[in-house]
Amino acid sequence: MLLRNAVLAAMAGGQPYGLIQNAAIVVEQGQISWAGPEADLPSEHNGVGEDLGGRLVTPGLIDCHTHIVFGGNRATEFEMRLNGASYEEVARAGGGIVSTVTATRDISEDDLLVDALTRVDAMLAEGVSVIEVKSGYGLDRDTELKMLRVARAIGRARSVRVMTSFLGAHAVPSELKGRADEYIDSIAIPTLEAAHAEGLVDAVDGFCEGIAFDIAQIRRVFDKARELGLPIKLHAEQLSNIGGTRLAAAYGALSADHVEYADEDDAKALAASGSVAVLLPGAFYTLHETQLPPIEAFRAHGVPMALATDCNPGSSPLSSLLLVMNMGCTLFRLTPEEALAGVTVHAARALGLSDCGVIAPGKRADLAVWNVSNPAELAYRIGFNPLERRIFGGT
Amino acid sequence: MLLRNAVLAAMAGGQPYGLIQNAAIVVEQGQISWAGPEADLPSEHNGVGEDLGGRLVTPGLIDCHTHIVFGGNRATEFEMRLNGASYEEVARAGGGIVSTVTATRDISEDDLLVDALTRVDAMLAEGVSVIEVKSGYGLDRDTELKMLRVARAIGRARSVRVMTSFLGAHAVPSELKGRADEYIDSIAIPTLEAAHAEGLVDAVDGFCEGIAFDIAQIRRVFDKARELGLPIKLHAEQLSNIGGTRLAAAYGALSADHVEYADEDDAKALAASGSVAVLLPGAFYTLHETQLPPIEAFRAHGVPMALATDCNPGSSPLSSLLLVMNMGCTLFRLTPEEALAGVTVHAARALGLSDCGVIAPGKRADLAVWNVSNPAELAYRIGFNPLERRIFGGT
Ligand SMILES: [Zn+2]
Ligand SMILES: [Zn+2]
Repeated sequence: MLLRNAVLAAMAGGQPYGLIQNAAIVVEQGQISWAGPEADLPSEHNGVGEDLGGRLVTPGLIDCHTHIVFGGNRATEFEMRLNGASYEEVARAGGGIVSTVTATRDISEDDLLVDALTRVDAMLAEGVSVIEVKSGYGLDRDTELKMLRVARAIGRARSVRVMTSFLGAHAVPSELKGRADEYIDSIAIPTLEAAHAEGLVDAVDGFCEGIAFDIAQIRRVFDKARELGLPIKLHAEQLSNIGGTRLAAAYGALSADHVEYADEDDAKALAASGSVAVLLPGAFYTLHETQLPPIEAFRAHGVPMALATDCNPGSSPLSSLLLVMNMGCTLFRLTPEEALAGVTVHAARALGLSDCGVIAPGKRADLAVWNVSNPAELAYRIGFNPLERRIFGGT
Repeated sequence: MLLRNAVLAAMAGGQPYGLIQNAAIVVEQGQISWAGPEADLPSEHNGVGEDLGGRLVTPGLIDCHTHIVFGGNRATEFEMRLNGASYEEVARAGGGIVSTVTATRDISEDDLLVDALTRVDAMLAEGVSVIEVKSGYGLDRDTELKMLRVARAIGRARSVRVMTSFLGAHAVPSELKGRADEYIDSIAIPTLEAAHAEGLVDAVDGFCEGIAFDIAQIRRVFDKARELGLPIKLHAEQLSNIGGTRLAAAYGALSADHVEYADEDDAKALAASGSVAVLLPGAFYTLHETQLPPIEAFRAHGVPMALATDCNPGSSPLSSLLLVMNMGCTLFRLTPEEALAGVTVHAARALGLSDCGVIAPGKRADLAVWNVSNPAELAYRIGFNPLERRIFGGT
């Protein structure tokens, strides 16, 4: 396949966006074999090709942090809160994460897949080619495994690559209330081993926070991950600074996620470990958070910043990665180029993937073709999808 | 047409949402002839009908405040600002409303329509049946007329109802800088007369603000509107409180729009005049506004609140009315029911329309069928479109 007359945002090379005007891309056997100015196209690739009419081509988008597999939804709770219900009243009505855990335990594996695919399809329609999917709404062995099987099934049901993260250490289930250590040792870690044995785990995640698990508990999960040879990630410094980011860095994490309350030392630690800071403006927006992540420190220390939907039924019922790009710019003051890097090259790195996220020879031919010519338009528009076509693995 | 087994959010009647479970709707000659519990369906309407499978049906959505017809876009300016350019640097690079005026003057009428239709189509895909369209990027006679002709052309090119507002008093064009009175008297008012003579004007709007036009200037525009028998609306109290809302109320305005800086007296004035407060959270979000509109005062005094996209290339490059519903809840703390009323029954009123915005006998059969059963889901989800089908005038 030869694509001609494109504006390429290769997200590699020196200049902003890796931008190449009047560009051509050659795709062979699912991979990019050549990309550059059309005038430099080697003669062996010459041919009629397809004229893209000056359209922008970017790497396929990558959503590197989602909880997209879950049962039920929390619209009723959303409405109760806005009608003035207190936290207690919501909890008494079965609201909060407990309601999602119950619904996820109760739903069949088939129905769980069907429901997730409605959101996955919305993402694919915006040019997404890779989606990370976490477990963490089961909090028991069977349901955690069910969630991860559904995540794998998404990758078979649709032309999308799914990367799974085991998030047993997401919350303490209500049947073990107040017994977090017991939950970690007798449920979460054995379930991780079982899931890994089934080939269901690409990375191990946790939620390190006052309302979830402390440093010592997360450390036990990470030690097991290390023993199994699995990379780690962490929900860290979302609501307070308790050292999760530095812990993640000490374990050479792929990423530390949320990180609104991270400080300059945390940024230095991430830089030293080569970890990505995954920013989740959808949760920031929904929770009326006012603490901004330390963007300047990340920039100063060269910490790559990714952006993701955090798609989940509670704090971020959001399934548009394009909207996240706008939120990254509007709420976090990222530049449009940082926003696009955040959903391509840096998102790939947050998942440990080196074969995608940029347009360069040898990379997968996961591409998005847009009805715009200026890459800044992708972050500038709000709630508008200019996708012309998605190319996944060359097709 | 008989629709059966629906959940009806009729937005009329006493209970929240006017909700009717197990409902049926009868449509005849483009109008709703009966709507209610299926068990009560009069025998003359009995028939097989179409089973909607418990899906939610709402009135077709109404976007009652847009600047959707414009030339160019401002992505470059958006990027410059995020890269740290000062207001002056942006202006020197031709940014701001001046750039949109220039682009709108330069583009052909055909191309202006084609460009607007990309955004209109995004709205229709979300169940919108009525769109208000303002002029105001011409600021000269020919371009103002061109914009309004394009607005009318949208209504012919697509199955959507367009209501136009003449917004000559939007800004002083650069060729008349510092001569606002001259612009109002020698350009805006004569152009309004010409546009009205061509049948292009459904309402007259203005921008009353320190950076735009003062009370005396807007009053002259409103007096002309009154003379021509046209209803009025006003961009009021967006950046400061200078009395625009009370002026609008004194003229019996259909609506006062933005109104972040309105106070309780303004709310009382709107209540007395029966005017709608049109809230525009997209501009609030984009401009990092922190002053919330006086929602409690609007509630206390019974001012109907509408929600709209304000779709425009500068302060609200937003074309999703569903996202606006979520922003209304998240940013302004509206309830999901208020958000849905804001894009249906109250939006109709903000346009002076009494034949749409609710599901009731005698109203137009403009309906939206959704793949959800709980109306709160429409505002709860972010960046997700659950529309199953749009019915416009019964088809
Ligand atoms: Zn998360
Ligand atoms: Zn406006």
